Amino acid sequence: MKIQQFAVIGLGRFGSSLALELMELGYEVLGIDRDEDVVHEMSELLTHAVIADATDEETLRSLGIRNFDCGIVAIGDDIQMSILATILLKELGVNQVVAKAISTLHGRALTKLGVDRVIYPERDMGVRVAHQLVTPNLLDYIELSKDYSIVELTVPGCLNGKTLSEVNSRARYGCSIVAVHKPEGIIIAPTAMDQLRQGDIMVVIGSNENITQFEQQVVNV
Amino acid sequence: MKIQQFAVIGLGRFGSSLALELMELGYEVLGIDRDEDVVHEMSELLTHAVIADATDEETLRSLGIRNFDCGIVAIGDDIQMSILATILLKELGVNQVVAKAISTLHGRALTKLGVDRVIYPERDMGVRVAHQLVTPNLLDYIELSKDYSIVELTVPGCLNGKTLSEVNSRARYGCSIVAVHKPEGIIIAPTAMDQLRQGDIMVVIGSNENITQFEQQVVNV
Amino acid sequence: MKIQQFAVIGLGRFGSSLALELMELGYEVLGIDRDEDVVHEMSELLTHAVIADATDEETLRSLGIRNFDCGIVAIGDDIQMSILATILLKELGVNQVVAKAISTLHGRALTKLGVDRVIYPERDMGVRVAHQLVTPNLLDYIELSKDYSIVELTVPGCLNGKTLSEVNSRARYGCSIVAVHKPEGIIIAPTAMDQLRQGDIMVVIGSNENITQFEQQVVNV
Amino acid sequence: MKIQQFAVIGLGRFGSSLALELMELGYEVLGIDRDEDVVHEMSELLTHAVIADATDEETLRSLGIRNFDCGIVAIGDDIQMSILATILLKELGVNQVVAKAISTLHGRALTKLGVDRVIYPERDMGVRVAHQLVTPNLLDYIELSKDYSIVELTVPGCLNGKTLSEVNSRARYGCSIVAVHKPEGIIIAPTAMDQLRQGDIMVVIGSNENITQFEQQVVNV
Amino acid sequence: MKIQQFAVIGLGRFGSSLALELMELGYEVLGIDRDEDVVHEMSELLTHAVIADATDEETLRSLGIRNFDCGIVAIGDDIQMSILATILLKELGVNQVVAKAISTLHGRALTKLGVDRVIYPERDMGVRVAHQLVTPNLLDYIELSKDYSIVELTVPGCLNGKTLSEVNSRARYGCSIVAVHKPEGIIIAPTAMDQLRQGDIMVVIGSNENITQFEQQVVNV
Amino acid sequence: MKIQQFAVIGLGRFGSSLALELMELGYEVLGIDRDEDVVHEMSELLTHAVIADATDEETLRSLGIRNFDCGIVAIGDDIQMSILATILLKELGVNQVVAKAISTLHGRALTKLGVDRVIYPERDMGVRVAHQLVTPNLLDYIELSKDYSIVELTVPGCLNGKTLSEVNSRARYGCSIVAVHKPEGIIIAPTAMDQLRQGDIMVVIGSNENITQFEQQVVNV
Amino acid sequence: MKIQQFAVIGLGRFGSSLALELMELGYEVLGIDRDEDVVHEMSELLTHAVIADATDEETLRSLGIRNFDCGIVAIGDDIQMSILATILLKELGVNQVVAKAISTLHGRALTKLGVDRVIYPERDMGVRVAHQLVTPNLLDYIELSKDYSIVELTVPGCLNGKTLSEVNSRARYGCSIVAVHKPEGIIIAPTAMDQLRQGDIMVVIGSNENITQFEQQVVNV
Amino acid sequence: MKIQQFAVIGLGRFGSSLALELMELGYEVLGIDRDEDVVHEMSELLTHAVIADATDEETLRSLGIRNFDCGIVAIGDDIQMSILATILLKELGVNQVVAKAISTLHGRALTKLGVDRVIYPERDMGVRVAHQLVTPNLLDYIELSKDYSIVELTVPGCLNGKTLSEVNSRARYGCSIVAVHKPEGIIIAPTAMDQLRQGDIMVVIGSNENITQFEQQVVNV
Repeated sequence: MKIQQFAVIGLGRFGSSLALELMELGYEVLGIDRDEDVVHEMSELLTHAVIADATDEETLRSLGIRNFDCGIVAIGDDIQMSILATILLKELGVNQVVAKAISTLHGRALTKLGVDRVIYPERDMGVRVAHQLVTPNLLDYIELSKDYSIVELTVPGCLNGKTLSEVNSRARYGCSIVAVHKPEGIIIAPTAMDQLRQGDIMVVIGSNENITQFEQQVVNV
Repeated sequence: MKIQQFAVIGLGRFGSSLALELMELGYEVLGIDRDEDVVHEMSELLTHAVIADATDEETLRSLGIRNFDCGIVAIGDDIQMSILATILLKELGVNQVVAKAISTLHGRALTKLGVDRVIYPERDMGVRVAHQLVTPNLLDYIELSKDYSIVELTVPGCLNGKTLSEVNSRARYGCSIVAVHKPEGIIIAPTAMDQLRQGDIMVVIGSNENITQFEQQVVNV
Repeated sequence: MKIQQFAVIGLGRFGSSLALELMELGYEVLGIDRDEDVVHEMSELLTHAVIADATDEETLRSLGIRNFDCGIVAIGDDIQMSILATILLKELGVNQVVAKAISTLHGRALTKLGVDRVIYPERDMGVRVAHQLVTPNLLDYIELSKDYSIVELTVPGCLNGKTLSEVNSRARYGCSIVAVHKPEGIIIAPTAMDQLRQGDIMVVIGSNENITQFEQQVVNV
Repeated sequence: MKIQQFAVIGLGRFGSSLALELMELGYEVLGIDRDEDVVHEMSELLTHAVIADATDEETLRSLGIRNFDCGIVAIGDDIQMSILATILLKELGVNQVVAKAISTLHGRALTKLGVDRVIYPERDMGVRVAHQLVTPNLLDYIELSKDYSIVELTVPGCLNGKTLSEVNSRARYGCSIVAVHKPEGIIIAPTAMDQLRQGDIMVVIGSNENITQFEQQVVNV
Repeated sequence: MKIQQFAVIGLGRFGSSLALELMELGYEVLGIDRDEDVVHEMSELLTHAVIADATDEETLRSLGIRNFDCGIVAIGDDIQMSILATILLKELGVNQVVAKAISTLHGRALTKLGVDRVIYPERDMGVRVAHQLVTPNLLDYIELSKDYSIVELTVPGCLNGKTLSEVNSRARYGCSIVAVHKPEGIIIAPTAMDQLRQGDIMVVIGSNENITQFEQQVVNV
Repeated sequence: MKIQQFAVIGLGRFGSSLALELMELGYEVLGIDRDEDVVHEMSELLTHAVIADATDEETLRSLGIRNFDCGIVAIGDDIQMSILATILLKELGVNQVVAKAISTLHGRALTKLGVDRVIYPERDMGVRVAHQLVTPNLLDYIELSKDYSIVELTVPGCLNGKTLSEVNSRARYGCSIVAVHKPEGIIIAPTAMDQLRQGDIMVVIGSNENITQFEQQVVNV
Repeated sequence: MKIQQFAVIGLGRFGSSLALELMELGYEVLGIDRDEDVVHEMSELLTHAVIADATDEETLRSLGIRNFDCGIVAIGDDIQMSILATILLKELGVNQVVAKAISTLHGRALTKLGVDRVIYPERDMGVRVAHQLVTPNLLDYIELSKDYSIVELTVPGCLNGKTLSEVNSRARYGCSIVAVHKPEGIIIAPTAMDQLRQGDIMVVIGSNENITQFEQQVVNV
Repeated sequence: MKIQQFAVIGLGRFGSSLALELMELGYEVLGIDRDEDVVHEMSELLTHAVIADATDEETLRSLGIRNFDCGIVAIGDDIQMSILATILLKELGVNQVVAKAISTLHGRALTKLGVDRVIYPERDMGVRVAHQLVTPNLLDYIELSKDYSIVELTVPGCLNGKTLSEVNSRARYGCSIVAVHKPEGIIIAPTAMDQLRQGDIMVVIGSNENITQFEQQVVNV
C-alpha cells in the first residue's frame, strides 16, 4: 500500500478523531493546532504534532506542507482562520484540500476558494442519529438513493431460530437480506437455509418503504 | 405509523440538524434552547420551539416534558448543563433519554446517570471522514464487524461497459456486488449480465482486506 | 487507632477547614486544588498538598488516589468539576466518596453517581444559625427528632446559686438537665444538690416545646 | 411567643437557608438582595423580599430597618459590601447585628465595627463534617468542652436486643447513654432495662477519649 | 449623467468618507452598518442608511441589494464578516464588488472569491504620505511608471517673478512644467513668458531623478 | 542627497507602510511600537525598530529622538496616546511632527498642540476611491483646484491606432494629453502624430467638466 | 454680587465637591456627566445637571455652554475625554477654562491647548497632608514663599492662661501671632494682654524655621 | 529634629505626592504598593519602596511596620483593601494611623475602626478650588472659622504705589493686611508707610464679608 501523508489542521474533537483514525488505518499524519495542551496530548499519538498558527504562510512553508497529499482544515468555530488556512493550503500546492464548514455560507465560501470537499460533521451526524432514533433496531445504514437504503437491523426474539426462507423477506416485504452477522462470523450472501438467532445483525437492502414495513411488522413488534 | 414525540434540548448545529431530520421523517419535535435568536429561527421549522433553561425543573414540568417519548440532550459544550438537564429528563419520567457527550469522562457520567444512549457526534464523524479520505471512490460504508464492511464505490472509467461477470469481483477479489445504483434506478441483487457504466455506484460487501484490494487494483487505478 | 487517609479535593473555606480539622484529629490528609497560592498556603499544614486538576484521570491515578480510604469533593461552585471529579474517585476505587453540593439538583446528580454522602454546608449552617438566633442563650444543639432536642443553654443570673432541685426543670417544664459545664469541669448526670452559677452551661434534653417554654420562662427573662 | 422580626441581607445559599428556617420557626423575615432573580424566587417564601443595595443608607432607612430586632449580614464574598452594610445596620439602630465572615481578618473587622456575633459558616461546617467522617456512626454532636462531648451514635447490629445494663457503657467505658431514639419515640433518661435495637440512635455523653473507645470497641466493630 | 447606485457596507472612517464623497459626486448611496449610532449619524447624509448584519442573506435580499451597480465592502478589521459579506454580494448578483483588505492574505482571499477590486487604504496612504514627507514642497503626485511622475510643487521665493524661460526647467533639469496654478486661475500649457509667483503651484512632469534634482537645486534651497 | 532620519511611532497598517516606503526611498527610519510581535516583524526591514511606550519621556529621550528630522505619530485609534506622544516629540525638539488623526476633533487637538501636518489616511483614501469608482478608466488623479484636475486614463479599444490629432481632445473637449505611457516607455509632451494603442495610459489635464465629458463620450463608450 | 455661571464637566469626587461648594457660595452651576446615576444624585443639588457626553460638540452647543463664565473640566482618569472636552470649551468660546490633570504630561497638554489654569487635586492634597502630619498641632497653613508661612496651631495645655506678652513669640522665636480663634470668637490683631486658653487656635506668621522652632519648643512639648 | 518614620500604603497620585513631600521635609518614608511599575518608579525617591499586599498580615509584620510612627493608608478606590490594611496597621501597633476615604460611609467605617484621622483629598480640594475660582485674585486661604478667613490676594494695578495708609483697608473694609510678599522678600506686620506694588501678594485677615467687599471694590475692579 502506497503510504499517503495527511496534514490535519485543528485538533479539536472532530480533527483529533479523524487524525487518530487515519493513524489507525496506517497513514502518516501531521497534526497542527495553536493550543499547546492539545498538541502535547496528541504528540505521542500522531506521526508529528506541532504548535503552529496555520494562517502564517512562513510557518506552513517551513513545515513542508506542500509535500502532503491531503490537507484537512478541521478548525472548529473560527471561520476567518478556516478560510485563511484553506487559501494557504491551496496556494502552497497541497493536492487535495478538505475543510469542515459550520454553516452553509461558510461552506459556500470554502467551495469558491477551491476546496475539494466540504464537510459538515455536526449536521451530518444529526441526520444519522435522527434515523437511528426512529428505527430502534437500526444500527447503521447507507442511503443508496432518496428511496433505497441498506440497513443493519438487530434480529428480534420473534425471529429466533427461523430460516431465511421462513422469514421470506423478499416475497413478503420486497427487501433482501444480503448478510448476517453472527457471533461466530459474517455470512455473506446467506442461503435460504441459514438460520437467524436473536441478537444476530442482518443487513437488509430494499426501498425505504419496504424496509420500514419489514422493520415495523416483523422486527420491532 | 404511530406518531412519536421528541424533545430536543440544545439547538446548535448537531441538535438543529437532528430536529429538522426528525421533522422530515414525520415526527413531532419540541426544540428547547436558551438562545432567543436560535429559537426564533427554528420556530417555524419545528412543531414547537421555546426559549427555556433546561436545568430548571419547573420549566420542563410546565412544558409537559414527561409526555415525550424521547428526550435528546444535544447541549453543546456545557457539561454541567448537559448533566443537570439529563437528570431532570430522567426524573420527570421521559421514556428514552439520548445525550451527546464531548469527552469520554462526560460520556461515562451520562451513562452512570442512566442515559439510554450516549452519542459522540464529532468523534464518530471524524472516523467516517477518515475512511472516506483514504478510499477516494468510497461514498459511504457500514462497518459490519472489525473485518467486514459494506461500501459504496463509484464505478471508474476502466470498468465502463463491463458486465459483472467480466468484473468477476467474487472470484478474483472475494467481494460481492450486491447492488448497483444507476441514473435510471437501483438494481438490487444484480445479475452477471448487468453492465456497469462509469459513474454508477456499486455496493460491495466483503472483508476489508478484499475490498481494499479490489478498490486499489480495479477501481482506483 | 488505625490511621485512615483522606483526600480532600478543593481547598476553599469549607475544604481547608475540613482538611485542617482532620489533621487535628490525627489523620493523614492529601489536599488537592488547582490554585497555586491556595496549595502553597496549605502545604505546611497538611500531610501533602498538590496543585492538580482533579478532573484529569491520569493525575489522580499518579497520586495513588485509590489507596485513600475516603475522598471528599469539596469543590466550591463549579458543578461540572464536582461531578467529573466524583466520577473519577468512584471509578478509581476510592472506598468512600463524600461530596459537597450547592443545590438540590446538584445533590441529586451526586447521589445518582453513587456518592456515599452529600453535604450542603451553607444550607445546614443556615439552619443551625437560625436556631441559635431565636434562642439567645442557645450555644449549640442536637436535633434528636422533629420534636426532641438536646440543647446547651447559658445559666442566667436569675438561676445563680440555685440547686437543680430548686430549678426542678423536669417537674415544671418536662425537660432534664443531663450535664452542667462549670469553670472547674463538667458534671455529667448532676444530682439534685448540684448548684448552678451564672455563666455555667447546662445541657438540657426534652421536647422542643418544653425546652422553649423553659428557656423563655426561666432562662431568658 | 413574642414575634421577632429579622432582616437577612444577602440571600445566597447560607442567607436563604437561614431565612427560610426562621420562617419555619414562626418569625417574620425581610430578605434583601441585589439580585432580581434571587429575590423573585424568595418572595413567596419570606414575609417580604426586596431588591435593594444594602450599602445605600436611604434604601435601608426607607425599609424601616431600625424596627427590626435583628439584622443578619449574610453577604457572600464581597467584604466591602459586608462591612458597609454592617455599619449602616449599626448606625440605623438595629438592636442585634450578626454577620458572616469569610476570613479571620474580615471577622476582626466586623468585631471592631461592633457586630454582636461573627459567623464562619463554611469553616464551622468543615469542622463538623471532619468529626462525622472519622466516626462513621456519628450522626451529630455537641462539643461540651475541649475534652467532653455529647454524641448521637447509630446502634450497630452487635448490640441488637441488648439492654443498657448489658451494654454497661458507664462502668466499662465511662460514658452514659442519656437518651435512645427509637422508631416509636424518644426515651429520655432510659433505664437499665431498656433494650437497644439495631438502627436506634443512642445519645451518649462522656469524655472524648471514652466515647472514642466505646465507639471503636463496641459500636464500630 | 446616468445615475448609478452604490451600496457601502461598513461605515467606519474609510467607508463613511467614501460614501459621503460618492454623494458629493451626485450618486445614490445606501450605507449599511451594524452599529446603531454610526447609522444614525449617517442617515441624513446618505440616500439611505440601515442598521443591518451584512452576513445575513435574507437581510441583504430584502434590501434589494442586487439592484445596486456596485457594492463596496468597507468592513474594518473583521476578516470573517468581510469575506462572508463579499460572497453574498457576489451571489446575489451585484455587478461590481469592491472590497477593502487589511492584509495581503485577506486580499488574496477576496480576489479568489471574485472581488473586482481589492483596496488597501492604510497601506496606499502610507506610501503617498512617505513621498510627501521626503519632498517638502510636494503637494500631490501621480506615479506614471516606476521612473516617471507628475508632481505638484509649491513655487519658492527664489523663483518669484521669474518666467518659465528663465527657469528653463526642460533644458536644465529635463522636466516640463505643464500647468501653473495661480490665485487667479489655472494656466494649462503655460508659455515661456508666463511668470511664476511665490506660492503658485506648478505641475511638473519628468523622470523621478530629474524632478528630484530640480526640486533640490531650484525649489527647496 | 542629504540623508534624513525619520521616527515613526505606531507600526500598524498605515505606519508600517509609511516606514517601509521611506526605507525604499533611501532614508533612515526608526520604528517604535508597544507591540512586541509587530516590532519583531519590522526589525529586519527598518534601520531600527524598538518596543517602547512613546508616552514615556525618558524612553524617547534615551532613543535620542530629538536628533530625528521628522517624527510621525501614526498611532492607530488611541487618541490619548497620540496626543501625549505628539507633545513629547514637540517638547523634545523634533523638527517636524506629522500626526495621524481619526476625527476632526482629534485633528483640531493636534493642530492646537503645534503639529506641522495632520493626516487623515482613511478619510483621504475614501475620497480617492470614490473618484476611481465613478470613473472606471481612471487610474490616478491630482486635484489641481476645485475645478481642474490631471487624470490618468486607460486608452480604450475605440481609440486604438488613432493619432492625437485625430483624437483632437483639446479642440473637441477642451482638455490636453500631456503624456502617454506606452509599454515601451513614457512620451512626455506627445506630438499630434503620436499614436495611441489600446491599453496605453494617457495623462490628461483639463477642467473636471471637460475631462468627464471626454471620458464619457470618448473613453468609456 | 454679580452672579456668575459655572459649568462643571465630570461629577466625580472632586467635581461634585467643587460644584456643591460653588452652589454654597451662591453661584449657578451646570453639572455634566455621562453617568446617569451620578447626574440623578446631583440633580437636586445643582442649578442644572445633565447626562451628556462632553466630547460631543453638538451637545455642548445645545446646552449653551458658551454663555458660561467658566468651564471646569473635572474629568477623572480619562485623559482623552479631558483633552477633547477642553478643546470644545475653548472653541465654543467659554471665557475661562480650568482643568484637572492627573500627570504632568497631561497638564502640559492642557496648558498647550490654552487652559487658563491646571489643577492637580491629589498631588496638591498630598503636599498639604504631608505638612499637617509632621506638625501635629498644625490645622491649616498658607505657604507665603519658599521660606515663610502662616499657620494655624492649636494652643497646648502648657500655654493655658498665658498672655501673648508672656509667650513673647516675636522676641523669642521671631514669629508673630496675628489672630486667636477662641470659642467666643476671633480676635484679630490680638494685644499683648490677650490670654490664650488650651484648645484656642492661634494664627502664626513667620519664617518656616522660626515657626518650626516655636512649634517644637513651645507648642508640641 | 527627632526623625520620624512614615509608612505610606498606596502610591497613587495622592499617596506618592504625600510620600515625596515627607521626604522633602526630611523624614524617612517606606512606600508600599501592589503595582510593580509604581514601586519601581518610586524606589529611588523614597527611603524604601516595596511591592507588597498590605492586607497580608505576615507581609506587614516582616516589614517591621509596628516600628513606624505613622501609617498612612492612601489606597485609591478599593474600600475593602483600605479597611483591611487599616485594621492590620492598628492591630500591629502603629502609633498613628491616617486613612484616605472616598465616601462618607467609607470614612465612618474608618473612624469606627479607630483611625486617628480621615482625609477626603478630592472633596477637600474641590472646596479649595471653588473658593479660588470665585475670587480671581485669591491665591490661597485659611478658613479660620465659618465667618473669618486669612487670604492671599494679588495686588492689582489700581493699588500700585499706594501705601497701606492710603489703602486703609482696616477702616474702610474692616480687614487688616498682615503681610506683604514682594519680590525682594516678605514684610511681616507691614507699617502704614509700606508701599504696595502691582503683583505683590498681600495677606489679608478679616470676616469673609469684609474680605469679599474689599476684594470686589478695591482689588478686582
